[in-house]
Amino acid sequence: MVRVGIVGISGFGGKVLLDILLKHKEVRVTYVAANSTTGRVDAIWPEFRGRTDLVCAKYDPARAIEHCELVFLALPHMESMKIVDALLKAGKKVIDLSADYRLKKTSLYTQWYGAEHKDRKNLLKAVYGLPEIFRAKVRKSRFIANPGCYPTAALLALAPLASIDPGKIVSIIIDAKSGVSGAGRKVAEGFMFCFVNENFKAYRVLTHQHTPEISQYLSGMAGKELKAVFVPHLLPINNGILETIYVTLNEKMTANALDTLYRKFYKTESFVRVMPKGEQVEVKNVVHTNFCDIALTVSEDRKMIVITSAIDNLVKGAAGQAVQNMNIMYDFQETEGLL
Amino acid sequence: MVRVGIVGISGFGGKVLLDILLKHKEVRVTYVAANSTTGRVDAIWPEFRGRTDLVCAKYDPARAIEHCELVFLALPHMESMKIVDALLKAGKKVIDLSADYRLKKTSLYTQWYGAEHKDRKNLLKAVYGLPEIFRAKVRKSRFIANPGCYPTAALLALAPLASIDPGKIVSIIIDAKSGVSGAGRKVAEGFMFCFVNENFKAYRVLTHQHTPEISQYLSGMAGKELKAVFVPHLLPINNGILETIYVTLNEKMTANALDTLYRKFYKTESFVRVMPKGEQVEVKNVVHTNFCDIALTVSEDRKMIVITSAIDNLVKGAAGQAVQNMNIMYDFQETEGLL
Amino acid sequence: MVRVGIVGISGFGGKVLLDILLKHKEVRVTYVAANSTTGRVDAIWPEFRGRTDLVCAKYDPARAIEHCELVFLALPHMESMKIVDALLKAGKKVIDLSADYRLKKTSLYTQWYGAEHKDRKNLLKAVYGLPEIFRAKVRKSRFIANPGCYPTAALLALAPLASIDPGKIVSIIIDAKSGVSGAGRKVAEGFMFCFVNENFKAYRVLTHQHTPEISQYLSGMAGKELKAVFVPHLLPINNGILETIYVTLNEKMTANALDTLYRKFYKTESFVRVMPKGEQVEVKNVVHTNFCDIALTVSEDRKMIVITSAIDNLVKGAAGQAVQNMNIMYDFQETEGLL
Amino acid sequence: MVRVGIVGISGFGGKVLLDILLKHKEVRVTYVAANSTTGRVDAIWPEFRGRTDLVCAKYDPARAIEHCELVFLALPHMESMKIVDALLKAGKKVIDLSADYRLKKTSLYTQWYGAEHKDRKNLLKAVYGLPEIFRAKVRKSRFIANPGCYPTAALLALAPLASIDPGKIVSIIIDAKSGVSGAGRKVAEGFMFCFVNENFKAYRVLTHQHTPEISQYLSGMAGKELKAVFVPHLLPINNGILETIYVTLNEKMTANALDTLYRKFYKTESFVRVMPKGEQVEVKNVVHTNFCDIALTVSEDRKMIVITSAIDNLVKGAAGQAVQNMNIMYDFQETEGLL
Repeated sequence: MVRVGIVGISGFGGKVLLDILLKHKEVRVTYVAANSTTGRVDAIWPEFRGRTDLVCAKYDPARAIEHCELVFLALPHMESMKIVDALLKAGKKVIDLSADYRLKKTSLYTQWYGAEHKDRKNLLKAVYGLPEIFRAKVRKSRFIANPGCYPTAALLALAPLASIDPGKIVSIIIDAKSGVSGAGRKVAEGFMFCFVNENFKAYRVLTHQHTPEISQYLSGMAGKELKAVFVPHLLPINNGILETIYVTLNEKMTANALDTLYRKFYKTESFVRVMPKGEQVEVKNVVHTNFCDIALTVSEDRKMIVITSAIDNLVKGAAGQAVQNMNIMYDFQETEGLL
Repeated sequence: MVRVGIVGISGFGGKVLLDILLKHKEVRVTYVAANSTTGRVDAIWPEFRGRTDLVCAKYDPARAIEHCELVFLALPHMESMKIVDALLKAGKKVIDLSADYRLKKTSLYTQWYGAEHKDRKNLLKAVYGLPEIFRAKVRKSRFIANPGCYPTAALLALAPLASIDPGKIVSIIIDAKSGVSGAGRKVAEGFMFCFVNENFKAYRVLTHQHTPEISQYLSGMAGKELKAVFVPHLLPINNGILETIYVTLNEKMTANALDTLYRKFYKTESFVRVMPKGEQVEVKNVVHTNFCDIALTVSEDRKMIVITSAIDNLVKGAAGQAVQNMNIMYDFQETEGLL
Repeated sequence: MVRVGIVGISGFGGKVLLDILLKHKEVRVTYVAANSTTGRVDAIWPEFRGRTDLVCAKYDPARAIEHCELVFLALPHMESMKIVDALLKAGKKVIDLSADYRLKKTSLYTQWYGAEHKDRKNLLKAVYGLPEIFRAKVRKSRFIANPGCYPTAALLALAPLASIDPGKIVSIIIDAKSGVSGAGRKVAEGFMFCFVNENFKAYRVLTHQHTPEISQYLSGMAGKELKAVFVPHLLPINNGILETIYVTLNEKMTANALDTLYRKFYKTESFVRVMPKGEQVEVKNVVHTNFCDIALTVSEDRKMIVITSAIDNLVKGAAGQAVQNMNIMYDFQETEGLL
Repeated sequence: MVRVGIVGISGFGGKVLLDILLKHKEVRVTYVAANSTTGRVDAIWPEFRGRTDLVCAKYDPARAIEHCELVFLALPHMESMKIVDALLKAGKKVIDLSADYRLKKTSLYTQWYGAEHKDRKNLLKAVYGLPEIFRAKVRKSRFIANPGCYPTAALLALAPLASIDPGKIVSIIIDAKSGVSGAGRKVAEGFMFCFVNENFKAYRVLTHQHTPEISQYLSGMAGKELKAVFVPHLLPINNGILETIYVTLNEKMTANALDTLYRKFYKTESFVRVMPKGEQVEVKNVVHTNFCDIALTVSEDRKMIVITSAIDNLVKGAAGQAVQNMNIMYDFQETEGLL
């Protein structure tokens, strides 16, 4: 049994990680910590009563190093970068669910996250943990930057086209909708029940911090600069993301060609499901799972493709994908704990 | 046009009051204030954009007295009692939506609200504004203690039996369920979307502060002490209360007798609807209205009655009832602004 | 008092119409009918108990003609076209909430609604009842084709640009999200609580029947053909539409210029609210109102505008707009019953 | 691997069963059937795409007998009783999730389910599969009547008191609230999104068919007749039941004594969690789990106990408990597939 730790157990990401890892047959959770909350995990999250006796303490690098071979960091951005270096130096594997090691240019980090990056040294070591695209690198890595939730749904939806046929892409618009848990366990009026329920709105229109993450990896796949327009919205549901992506092409593409391209690209993947033609993805089909569902609609006339993709923001968009990365790093069955 | 003011415009009660009063043909809202929030009302509540240019300032008794004939206090408890006396002394009419003047014994206030009462002098002057029971007193009063939301639904459900046939009542259990707006605009983790949505729970079991209010007025109607067991629950909806009330009797009562008793009691009331036999009340039928719906089920065998009653906690349970009281005080049509 | 009738009282549109008309001070509802449901209106919709004694019968043209000066048709498409002609011949005014008289080309009707149009004669007489654009025509008309819910939000969001500066528009993508009442009172598995709640999905991607309605009136305003890409989604809320509209321009436009254009265009309108810069529309601010809220975001770099617009699909998107049209036709205060 | 079948895969119970069984390491699902729906399971329930290739056919006893050692019946009542006998005769184990074999008196069945019982012979053979109470009998049985969802939450909440100290109980009132999936996959207006969302109501007040099931097993445990008053309500959530149970005693009982009684009774149970004193159960803590959470509140004065209990109606209230029963019958780890 591999001994693993979770730092940030008091957040939603940490909670879902623990839920998955308690059922995982190759690992044992030996250490949990958080920034401010302490005490029994089943007092922090009563749903775990009867499932674990773990006790959460303030993060202590020495204890993390002593008790774990791998540490999951489910922390807010700006926090991970303070503790990664010591863990890596101690020879530990690290999977960071924060945004700290995803953007490769520190200037972009400063621009979108409003702060200096404090650990440039390890920035380039981090492998972006989107297994369907970077599995080989993940396998050899000791340090994973786990993708953001919106970028996961966007990049999986666009990867076949961007990797195989990027020359065709003229423009990309991503209209994204997320459940409320995507905002984390933040206590703010905008996330109060009466302000979310029976409501719907766009937020951070054209200014969301996941925008450069999407563009960076999309451009990387395409081998040319691809910038997506990105507008997120807040759905009155707990979990789930659905993105409706409008791709304008410079020439006609048939529905069959597109379908073939996507099916071939994801043929061997366990967690990406390309819908049968004519069917749409639905959040309910992926929630509490590690699946990413993708549906394709073509308007030949307009040279436009409409792609819808759906994930659970806390599973494939965070904790599930982190476990998938761990499974690859340790050569466990990739689906262990996730199916 | 009567000039009225609202103190506490930043809360849900204040918002619904303004919504009703802006449509009311006999009054003009000339003054709005709050404790902490200031600025244009349509910045505090964007739903009012295009409907009002009112600006909210910190409460100033001199301005309230200058600008209003009647002042609605939609404040948290402990706040109303600081400002009522000055308003009454200045000859103003006051309708207080807080809990401060409902309990007639200050010892009970201290016990259930955890603080000393600071305005005993005016306590006995306040008329409990449940028009269906105390209309004559409301008409002559200048100072109304507007009932709590849970007590409104409970007292209207029990009034016919308690007023006419109290000798039959052996025990009363009130299982109450409320939408989240009942908790006010409080920003706390327990009211965050992800902690309420797809959830349901009881809270303050046997210790909710509305318990003595229910018992006091129930006993008053009955002319004997009647104590109800009261357990509230939090529903994942914005607005609405439904109470399921179990009354044990000391003798059999037929469904017909009960039905007749209730229909007769509420015959001339505009806002109480006794359901046809066999039909149940539903929150959706009363939400955004000033109605209280009541349904009756009898188990002759067990000498038990099950009464369900439903109101909108912010309308009949707060702002709507406050306007109904104002209508009575000024001899306006009782339904003005409310139907 | 103008005597008005509602045909289709058993649907959501008919219900909201009745709710508004019962509060309207210039009209009296003298006739209600439906296709299949009959009986007291407060048995069909228990929320009306205590508010009306109206009884719904199967539609009878003679009775409608006898009892009404104006008839609202809140019927499914294909039904209105069977009864309009007789009403118009009898000299009645008609406001049709169905889709039957919106598309001016019957070939389009056949293509998108899958059936022959049966009343071509009256098709061209119908005035499209979007008052902010066609008020003068509405005023003189006896027969109104009330706009669809999605087109209302789309056309109001695009009208200033399309009317004043259509030459700049290169392409339009409308990503629309609607609450469930938009589907009507249809009993189908896809609208069951467990299939909608905690779910979100796109539907009829690129094939929704409101697409040609949007294009027709957009092109009319622009004086050139404008075709919008249109993708609707189902939100897990009862009421409300939010559309996120991506307009690509052929040259840069500043945020200030756009803001000025919109504010000027809607300066005298009671029901269109252009948000302050930097604020977004939210469904909760328009639900149960006749407002259409519009927010503007500009990306000068990309020559792109992102417009968000929000309405209540049953009010400004149906019954409220129908009453607004009636108010104009009869020269009542345009906001009567609606503010 | 034990080969198991699911009859009734198109219902919610069948779906959750399959979800659990696909992760269960001791069994293989070799047969699925339904009454009316046929085809690939992942077409019936798209959430299973990529997880199973099972194909659902109309129920065929010969095939069920050939392919399975144990058959789960997740059918509506009246259906199970038609097929149980053949399965038992063929030596198969059967776990029936319907109500058909729970009531031991056929007269009660007729009274509450409105139909004659057709398989009296097997009625007395069926063991009521509430493992915490009847584990020993379950272990030796080949035929399980899996408890109803409401009775599970009620009986576990009352078992310690009813089994150990029944003499104290004077009366029991159960105010129960259930999520919508409890109604099954029934397509009816009352379960449409717009009729459930933002709504709450009681239904079948004092006449719900689970009433005699609760009384029968409660009386059995107590060794004396115990009849509970039972009123169910419909919650606007997908999954979960919370019951608030009011027990009147004939003498005082302290909170400590009650707490000790319950903790001792459930000491060795994996799936019953007695809350720490002062904490309440919440639906969110049990949903998607096989736990039953129980909280106790005492009013010594009134000689009253208020018990709240919460389960997931489809897991501990149906499919999860069915798997727990199977685990016991086969001497698997009792928590296998469920933790």
